[in-house]
Amino acid sequence: MRLAVLVSGSGTNLQAILDAVCTGLLHAEVGLVLSNKPGVQSLARAEAAGVPAVVLSHRSFPTREAFDGEIVRELRLHRIDIVVLAGFMRIVTPVLLGAFPNRVVNIHPSLLPSFPGLDAQGQAFRAGVAVTGCTVHLVDGGMDSGAILAQAVVPVLADDDESRLSARILAEEHRLLPRVLEWFAAGLVSVHEDAAGVARVTVNGRARVAISPAFLQVFDP
Amino acid sequence: MRLAVLVSGSGTNLQAILDAVCTGLLHAEVGLVLSNKPGVQSLARAEAAGVPAVVLSHRSFPTREAFDGEIVRELRLHRIDIVVLAGFMRIVTPVLLGAFPNRVVNIHPSLLPSFPGLDAQGQAFRAGVAVTGCTVHLVDGGMDSGAILAQAVVPVLADDDESRLSARILAEEHRLLPRVLEWFAAGLVSVHEDAAGVARVTVNGRARVAISPAFLQVFDP
Repeated sequence: MRLAVLVSGSGTNLQAILDAVCTGLLHAEVGLVLSNKPGVQSLARAEAAGVPAVVLSHRSFPTREAFDGEIVRELRLHRIDIVVLAGFMRIVTPVLLGAFPNRVVNIHPSLLPSFPGLDAQGQAFRAGVAVTGCTVHLVDGGMDSGAILAQAVVPVLADDDESRLSARILAEEHRLLPRVLEWFAAGLVSVHEDAAGVARVTVNGRARVAISPAFLQVFDP
Repeated sequence: MRLAVLVSGSGTNLQAILDAVCTGLLHAEVGLVLSNKPGVQSLARAEAAGVPAVVLSHRSFPTREAFDGEIVRELRLHRIDIVVLAGFMRIVTPVLLGAFPNRVVNIHPSLLPSFPGLDAQGQAFRAGVAVTGCTVHLVDGGMDSGAILAQAVVPVLADDDESRLSARILAEEHRLLPRVLEWFAAGLVSVHEDAAGVARVTVNGRARVAISPAFLQVFDP
């Protein structure tokens, strides 16, 4: 299985994927790292791992569709099977989704459908929830709305601020995303459409939910 | 602390409260059970526990406000401190909320803000989430929107149907609601308004999140 990882920034989830490949937890090859921004740390991570990296600035294209068309060209050039959005700060269009049906995966830092969109961690913190987390899901045409593959739950602690909460969620992202990608590599994921035409996911024999170790701090005796 | 429990049906959460009082887990007295429907099992549970029970049919009142006015009269008559909505299928108005500011508590079978409104368990099941749960919160003027006191998380299992999932959530409701009420009894809950005038909850020294034992089935090795 050949992965492309699309990024816009520092790429800690990219690093988690590269590390999982390196340690043998993830049986896949990262065939391409594509950034819409030049100079980001993700590109250095790709280089350090010996992975081809491409910068495509969305500003160089007249439309989202034209940008996605060029991304699809790169993905095909690198014979990519699964596309991972890992902090990729662009909305993708049917041009990309149609070329990789049910093979574009995103990670979002909340328990969807709560807190879609930007700054999900801050949204959750300000809402005063007791629990939040992260979600790995297939990408469809909506905002963080595709079929859910897996979720990891994270407690909000009494002395939290947004920064500590965000770091705790990010640690779960780093654990969950490579695990879900390994499900694809192992052929455990099936996608089918329900009666309403909505994509549904079945994962064979693996738990679709994970728990932050921080829960050990909050168990009542 | 004197509780009123407002119900519309079988009252399993009422029973959990009565049991917690009986076993000494909850240091409170149930001073009133109020049902908007006659003949429901909740009334038999109240009678069996020796708790005053009142039936007030909302159909006997011209407006929601008039109905709530009569509820307030009953609550005061029975010297109630905290009002618990436990499967009470009526929307409450400022008439009730203003008489018991930040002292009306609801339990909702989802991890709010996901899946407010009716059939939260079915909404979650159909959405294909990997995790759901229940939420105990203060009631404000919105739909399941008040400040969150505590949440319990419940996994969706591979072979679930709505019925099994609902039962697993209900078991957590029965554990969570009496525990939160005991926080009120012990004086651990403080409510204050943030800069935007939104009620925020602080719970002193207790975990605001609980985990279903069903998670033991889904931990990856």
